[in-house]
Parts: sequence; structure tokens; C-alpha cells
Amino acid sequence: MAGGNRKRGAKSKTVGRAGELSEAGHDPPASANPAANHAGAGWSYERAGIDLRAAAFAKERIKAIARRTYTPGVMSEVGSFGGLFRIDPTQADAPVLVASADGVGSKLKLAFLTGRHDSVAADLVHHCVNDILTQGAAPLFFLDYVSLGKMDPAVVEQIVDGIARGCAENGCALLGGETAEMPDLYAPGEYDLAGFIVGLVDRHRILSGSACRPGDMLLGLGSDGLHTNGYSLARRVLLEEAKLKLEEFVPELGETVGEALLRPHRSYLRALRPLLGDPRLKALAHITGGGIACNLPRALSPGLRAGVQVGSWSEPALFGELRRRGRIDEDEMRRCFNLGLGMIAVVAAGAQDAVAAELRARGEQVWIIGELIPGKSGVDFWE
Amino acid sequence: MAGGNRKRGAKSKTVGRAGELSEAGHDPPASANPAANHAGAGWSYERAGIDLRAAAFAKERIKAIARRTYTPGVMSEVGSFGGLFRIDPTQADAPVLVASADGVGSKLKLAFLTGRHDSVAADLVHHCVNDILTQGAAPLFFLDYVSLGKMDPAVVEQIVDGIARGCAENGCALLGGETAEMPDLYAPGEYDLAGFIVGLVDRHRILSGSACRPGDMLLGLGSDGLHTNGYSLARRVLLEEAKLKLEEFVPELGETVGEALLRPHRSYLRALRPLLGDPRLKALAHITGGGIACNLPRALSPGLRAGVQVGSWSEPALFGELRRRGRIDEDEMRRCFNLGLGMIAVVAAGAQDAVAAELRARGEQVWIIGELIPGKSGVDFWE
Repeated sequence: MAGGNRKRGAKSKTVGRAGELSEAGHDPPASANPAANHAGAGWSYERAGIDLRAAAFAKERIKAIARRTYTPGVMSEVGSFGGLFRIDPTQADAPVLVASADGVGSKLKLAFLTGRHDSVAADLVHHCVNDILTQGAAPLFFLDYVSLGKMDPAVVEQIVDGIARGCAENGCALLGGETAEMPDLYAPGEYDLAGFIVGLVDRHRILSGSACRPGDMLLGLGSDGLHTNGYSLARRVLLEEAKLKLEEFVPELGETVGEALLRPHRSYLRALRPLLGDPRLKALAHITGGGIACNLPRALSPGLRAGVQVGSWSEPALFGELRRRGRIDEDEMRRCFNLGLGMIAVVAAGAQDAVAAELRARGEQVWIIGELIPGKSGVDFWE
Repeated sequence: MAGGNRKRGAKSKTVGRAGELSEAGHDPPASANPAANHAGAGWSYERAGIDLRAAAFAKERIKAIARRTYTPGVMSEVGSFGGLFRIDPTQADAPVLVASADGVGSKLKLAFLTGRHDSVAADLVHHCVNDILTQGAAPLFFLDYVSLGKMDPAVVEQIVDGIARGCAENGCALLGGETAEMPDLYAPGEYDLAGFIVGLVDRHRILSGSACRPGDMLLGLGSDGLHTNGYSLARRVLLEEAKLKLEEFVPELGETVGEALLRPHRSYLRALRPLLGDPRLKALAHITGGGIACNLPRALSPGLRAGVQVGSWSEPALFGELRRRGRIDEDEMRRCFNLGLGMIAVVAAGAQDAVAAELRARGEQVWIIGELIPGKSGVDFWE
């Protein structure tokens, strides 16, 4: 059970948005009186610990922020029971929805430590966008779930603001969400954050990896840092064992530890979208937890193996620091971190230089890192 | 910050499902050695506290359970980067997606206390199904987010089993989800659970309340208890103030406190689906947190008011116990609880008896509880 000094107060859903009007997701009742907690007084929501005023305020702010992300498909305002999104029949002959759920994970801890909450929120959107992009889908809409110990409108606003920024950058509507206040479950100042994305792809344009052949080339697209994976290990190594402070400038990194760790998860949608449906692009692998070793094979058909030339791309300094300070085995490094590649594209043999040039022109760092070979599913790292 | 005895161990996403392969969502590495924690040894994921074997086991079980819910629209197995769902063009001329996010909220506490986790999970699905039903949508698919302190495959299996049961009962595919292990955030044995649903409605069949007119009749559909709202207050009153035990039989309830509080959230899809597109059905209000007073007006156009005849339906005994033991003011009761009505349907004047009979024939308790009147948005409770 939870530790001694956690407040065992009310646990309650509070700010239903497009989802529902949840426990306190309505205007504060005129009769509520937080001071009426003397013995014998009747029980009320407010006395049970739910701050209706803060919830109502957060809800209004969320509405205004979400509105900025609305695309032509959105048919409803935040606040109805469900968010409505019109499928544009001209967008796909045979529309297939691609959906994914994800959480921020242990990168949240850095938000708690730094008090900066918009950055991890935008990361979550970018992560989800990249996930469905690997199947050829462009995002339609996003919904968030924020669950926190005590409703803090300023924190919730930062979170939703980051989500809305991530959505707007990717042409994705923030269609709804839920904010829950549960002091029994979360310590003060802490929260969990999950996201849910739905995108669209035409059935004939799904990237399934079935077009991949031996000889196809691998293009690695540069990551900006850890993105959203490997934080359990990175925190242990840098903050606990090496006892570095977040605000400490590390010459090898050229920046502070906090800056290096909070670098955003990059969205590859803008760079890769023009290649969706282009026969030169055969598969995409989003390099998240599990690294290249686990994620690249998921994008390929059985009977195909990837050969990756070690050293063919430029690895950000943070990974070298983690390797050195944590004495982390190279196999483990490859399983835990993206090592500088946030997305790997499988491109038809012969097209690699042209595609790389196009991606570079759209602002990506791109390296030709290897090729597909016949064999059992997996990755060979060529030293 | 969190209390003293909480384990400040690794916090990490672990079992990515349709969403992504997250931190430990892959097979356990052969080299991982949990015992290698002596000084000087290199750091690894396993040493950072992530139980890869438990995560891999849970993932396999989740796949098998989710498969049972698959409908013809599902195009992918759980485990790819995103879940694929084909839109059936014969289902709607002008397809509109309706999406909603929700959490279980404070009813979770009862799952922790009783060790029964499937029931609240099924509740979450039913809640989401009802939410989008109010706009005329039938569910296509559901994704879950489970975030827990320590990966416990037996608990996760119970949760996913409950979700799958809720999905199967509503013809809704469990298309994916995310399970995150975050010991830094959650106390041992505790977790949070959220769900995301996407449904479909033809644009011309959206229930918007725009067809409602003064004189239209209100049908109340019976709830089975608190459903998923009012648990903060109910726990305070029954468990903390009245000091009732969950296993205690209460004659006024005719069952134990735990049985009364854990009663499932009813899904009204099966009963109401045949009425979707029927002009006699003009609007639906899902009675969740905020009660009749807050939820019924949301389903109506401005300029319409609801008149509800107090005593026209049968209130389950649990609400009387809460009112009496908590000395809860009647206005507060109406804002906190559903008071025995889980869904209210607005039906064309003159059609109420026929529609009520149809709903009763499909197993619902139904009462004619009032009517629409001209006036400012809101509800009059007629004593």
C-alpha cells in the first residue's frame, strides 16, 4: 500500500471533456461549502475533497486550447459526451483507421523534477504520430488522459498546451480527453499522462513491409536524444549513480543534463508524409524502447534480416555518456536506446540517395545505414 | 512528493501492445542478469528494476485475450505499431467517428480492496459505450491504458479479461492498448486504468437533440447502482464514516456493502441500438457524474428544459442508505448520483408507451419520468 504521508483523500474523476461530464466536470454548485466539515454536517462532494472550482476553471481553459487544433473534420466542441470527427470520403477509397495508445512513461519524472510539463506532453503526441506513421497513416485526432493527485489548473494547462502544440504541428485535432483528480492514487505534484491517436490510411497504401526485398536499403533518420525511451536506465546512471544535477553543464554534452534529457521526441510526419504511397518507401520502423534490434524487425516480413553498419551514423553525445558512465554493455545499449536514430526507412534498392536527399531537404539528418538480407528475422550489427 | 515507504525504483513503460514496442515490450534478453547488482557491474534494464519476463508473459496473455474480441473490421494482430480497423462503407453513407476517453475513477479503490479487477475494467468499457451511444454511435473499437506500480501478470490478465468481456458484450474490438510499469508513480498493488473508444454514426443519424420539442417525453432506464460515479463520496460515507465493512451484509440493501458498490456499470447499447435512426428517439443522456441535473440538459438544445417527476421511478436501496447515513442534502444527491437512472431517452410525444414496451422487452427497467418544457436549459424536479 501507499506510503505514510500520502493524503488519503477523495479519489475522483473530475474534468470530463469530450468524454463525459464526470464527477466534478460541471459548474460548482452554489451550495458547496468547503468549510462545512464539522461533525454532524451533511456530506457533500466538496467536503469529500473534490475542488469543483479548480476543475471548472481547468475545463474552460482546456476548451479554449483544444479549439486551436481543430481541423475541418471536427464536428463538435469539446464538452459533449463524445467528440465527432467526419471522415472525408475523398481522403481514401478504402479507409482504414490506425489507432494507438501510449503513455509518456518514465520521462514524466523529469517533468516533475523540472516543473516543465508541456514538453513531455508534446513528446507523447509525437510518439503516437510516429507509431501510426509506420503503417502509412496520417493522424486525424488525438485524445488525452491526465490523471493527477490534486487538480492544479496551471499544471493541467501546461500539459494540455503541450498536447495541443504537438497536435497542431502534426495537423491532428485534439478531439477530447479526460482529466481525473485522484489524491488516493497519486502523490501531490505527480500525475500520469496517456494519449490515444487515430489516423487514416487507404487500404492499398498500408505500409506492411510486404514489398521489402533483399537488397533494399536502410535509411536512418536522426533522433534528437532519448525521445521517450530508456529513462529508467538513464536516470539511474546519470542522476543516481553519477549524481549529476539536472542544471549541471556537462562539457561532453555541450549542454546541461536536464537539457539533454528533456530534448523533445521528434515527429517524422512532415518529412515522411510526401513519401506515403510512393513505391520507393517500403517500410518504416519507429525506434522506441527495444531499440533498433527490436523495432526494425517488426517492420519487415519474415524471411528478411537487416544488416546495420555500426558507425555509419552520428550518435548524439548523450549516448556515449550513458555508455561510459553506466558501463553499459553494447548489446544492452542497442536494446535500451535509439542510439541516434529515431526512425528507419526501408527504401527500394537504388532509390536511397534520392530519398535521402529529399528527406534532408525537409530538414532531417539522414544516413544510409545498411540493407536488407535474406535470413531469419533480426538485425546483424556489422562492426 | 510520494510517501516514505514507496519504492523509488525504476519507472518505465513496459508492455506496448498495438501501440508500440515500448521499453520492455520485447522478449527478455538472454544476457540480462538480475543478480548482477554488485558495485562496478554495468547497468542494464533488468538491474534498473524492469521485469522483462513478467512483461513478456503478460503481453502473450493479452494477445490471446484480445483476439477473442476481434470483429470483421480488425485488420491487424495486437503487437504491430498501431491497430488497423477497416471502415465498412456499407455501414454509413457519411461516416462520422465518435471518440471518447475515460478513466475508471475512484471505483478503482474497491478493486484494490477486494482484489477483483475484471469488474471495474468491464465497467470502463460500458461507460465508454454509453457515452458515444448518446450521439447515436455504435462502437467500433476500444484501446486501454493500464499503468501500475509493479507488473503483476495475474492482475493485468484480470483487467484485460474484464475489458475484453465488456468489449465482446458490445460488439467492440479490443484493438490495442498499453501497459506501463511505473513503481515510482504507483504504490505496490495499485494502478490506474483508462480507456479510449471509437464508434461510428452516419452523419444524418447523429443524435444531437435538435429534434427535441416541448411535450416530448422522458423515459428513464434503470441503473444497477452507482455505475462509475460518486465513489469518493460513497466510500467516505459508508466505509469511513459509517465504518461498514465491504463483506458486511446490510439488511436494507439485501446484500453486502461490497456487492452493492461493485455492481457493474450497465451498457444500454443492446436495448437502444434498434432505436438508433428511429425518429421516435430524439436524444439520449448518459447519467454519470453530475447526475440527472447536469447530464440531461447536455442532451437538449438551448431553449428546452426538462421536468422530472420525483418518485416516478424505483430508486435502488443503496441511494437511500447513502442519503440517510451521510445526511446528504437532496440537491447534492441529485448532483452526485444517478439515483437509479443510468440513461434517459427523449422520445417523441405519444411514442413513450410503445418505446418503453420495446425497451422492457429487451430487458430494461423503464419508467416515464417526465417531459420537455419550454425554458432555460436545466431540470425542474417536480415533487
